[in-house]
Amino acid sequence: MTIRNLEDQDFLRISTNLNHWWGGRDMVDMLPRLFIEHFKNTSFIMEENGETLGFVIGFVSPVNSSNAYIHFVGVNPNVRKQRIGRTLYEHFFHEVKDKGCKIVNCVTSPVNQPSIEFHLKLGFKMKDGDFEVKGIPIQQNYDGIGIDRVLFEKSL
Amino acid sequence: MTIRNLEDQDFLRISTNLNHWWGGRDMVDMLPRLFIEHFKNTSFIMEENGETLGFVIGFVSPVNSSNAYIHFVGVNPNVRKQRIGRTLYEHFFHEVKDKGCKIVNCVTSPVNQPSIEFHLKLGFKMKDGDFEVKGIPIQQNYDGIGIDRVLFEKSL
Repeated sequence: MTIRNLEDQDFLRISTNLNHWWGGRDMVDMLPRLFIEHFKNTSFIMEENGETLGFVIGFVSPVNSSNAYIHFVGVNPNVRKQRIGRTLYEHFFHEVKDKGCKIVNCVTSPVNQPSIEFHLKLGFKMKDGDFEVKGIPIQQNYDGIGIDRVLFEKSL
Repeated sequence: MTIRNLEDQDFLRISTNLNHWWGGRDMVDMLPRLFIEHFKNTSFIMEENGETLGFVIGFVSPVNSSNAYIHFVGVNPNVRKQRIGRTLYEHFFHEVKDKGCKIVNCVTSPVNQPSIEFHLKLGFKMKDGDFEVKGIPIQQNYDGIGIDRVLFEKSL
């Protein structure tokens, strides 16, 4: 099992698997090639025997170099519950901390309960929202009208 | 008519207009808030009397600080053909050149003939493709399976 930086030639393999890995949701538009081409220095893939186990795509914020942002994390459905997401996140934390980051942010959909639990287990705090549903603070229309988000932040 | 950096509070107004400005195409997923939140230092909006005339969203590549990338440009359909796109691009060129960039890249859809003409008029060159249609070089599956792109590059 190895973790390495993403490379340009990984893009199509990742993009092709996206909708399957996300249980049929149409995710391809959310990951154009620019994210790998320009953020591969802070984006990683985990592999075993040539198979992709997971990947994480993030960057150091150009607006505030002490903040990092994780845009995308994906784990192969064949290898769920094996701490692959956690290992990729921890690898990312380590790398951006080396670059001087003190905080990592990310967002998820309020309906994605497994993602919310995953981030809480990793030590993320939920930021205040416009309202709460079952204790989850939600920012309404965060990514556009009707696109609510839960916002996470973790100190490194 | 003023040009200023995008700010977080501009996001929802821009996102809400996207589909209308793009003639009904569903573009909202392609512009999550992160692009404004983290790239507002190199992203700009043009306004007149409180109305948004256009905006451009781009960044300096973290992988290669002499390259800039333009992700999104939008012009209000009420004020087309008034060189607003050109003015926003030229503002972006000036700002990223000041930051040390020597090259600007962007991509467009092969079916978007007005966009192709716009970039050529601004001095962009088309990069080689996998095949050509009516003289336009096209990179097949560039942004995912079935998502072909024309690639542009301009020296500053």
